[in-house]
Amino acid sequence: MYTLYGNAISGNCWKPAFMLRQRRLPFRWVEIDILQGASRTPAFLAMNPNGRVPLLQLPDGRKLAESNAMLLHLGEGTHWLPQDAYDRAKVYEWLFFEQYSHEPAIATVRFWVARLNKGEEWREKIAATMVQGHAALGVMEQQLARTAFLAGETPTLADIALYAYTHVAGEGGYRLDGYPAVRGWLARFAAVPGFVAMPCTAAEDPS
Amino acid sequence: MYTLYGNAISGNCWKPAFMLRQRRLPFRWVEIDILQGASRTPAFLAMNPNGRVPLLQLPDGRKLAESNAMLLHLGEGTHWLPQDAYDRAKVYEWLFFEQYSHEPAIATVRFWVARLNKGEEWREKIAATMVQGHAALGVMEQQLARTAFLAGETPTLADIALYAYTHVAGEGGYRLDGYPAVRGWLARFAAVPGFVAMPCTAAEDPS
Repeated sequence: MYTLYGNAISGNCWKPAFMLRQRRLPFRWVEIDILQGASRTPAFLAMNPNGRVPLLQLPDGRKLAESNAMLLHLGEGTHWLPQDAYDRAKVYEWLFFEQYSHEPAIATVRFWVARLNKGEEWREKIAATMVQGHAALGVMEQQLARTAFLAGETPTLADIALYAYTHVAGEGGYRLDGYPAVRGWLARFAAVPGFVAMPCTAAEDPS
Repeated sequence: MYTLYGNAISGNCWKPAFMLRQRRLPFRWVEIDILQGASRTPAFLAMNPNGRVPLLQLPDGRKLAESNAMLLHLGEGTHWLPQDAYDRAKVYEWLFFEQYSHEPAIATVRFWVARLNKGEEWREKIAATMVQGHAALGVMEQQLARTAFLAGETPTLADIALYAYTHVAGEGGYRLDGYPAVRGWLARFAAVPGFVAMPCTAAEDPS
């Protein structure tokens, strides 16, 4: 069985949970309280020297870090990762865009405001970071005005990765009013077969 | 023929040039003067809405952004990208580590210091960012104390991605004295067959 070390409100941790559910792979969730430093203990650092969640333990015990590496690993051979070389490369492109241009602005502001409660104290830093976040949202808007999903007409890993923090951007104070195509895409993605909302900390829905 | 829009001193732009040379694929280099805003002109934004280099144009005219997406695209089917599912996932892991935890600290400080000449003025911001950079170097050191290359005993795309800015970290003021395994790896990587140093703006060595 897979073990997923994660934090329930983290979009990065939701990504592999979503894919495990899509693949119907059973997994155990281990909640890591990052605010209490639980991802920086000697025991955790022995598993992931970079001290971050999510961390995925495969059924054979081997470990994998980086949420988008997990998406690529778990998505291989599914309809979430195209076989065509160029289509596949465009998925890669969006995954790196997410980690470099989107997450550091959009997830970070949400964390500062909604978790650390620094909305007032860090007002200036937040405003500067939001410029980067809006640039990223603008790039998404341009693409989504042309195609139903980020890498084309069907959902891919790119949409999982970008949905993670875009759908909770408002918790950091981002307004999506100026991004009608992004809002339409959020609704479309939430309607994909087998969609599982965040938080997703169990291998099956309670029944 | 491929066209690579890049900036000669950018490590991110060196990555796809290195792989094109490895594959012996002819390419045309188009120098983009990012300090003069050449990656944010309407013409360039029409090619890459994210306004960044490198940008790769394939022989059929289609475009691809994100240096590590280019590495995965160009590396497919070569010895630089393992076929084994887990080995391959570890390469993905390092590629995302590079863009999230390494490049924003190490490439950024180099840019501030060596290109913008802000070493004194931004001293405080640089010191804070260097804490992140040393954390990233520490993660690499731990791995390279155990294996010859980042994802095992042979070089992969992970090494190309991390070599790009690690080997010029000193230009930003980083000292690698405390990272003997990283220094050994830098020398090892520079000796791989077909190694091409930065800058690499031509499809063949001048002869």
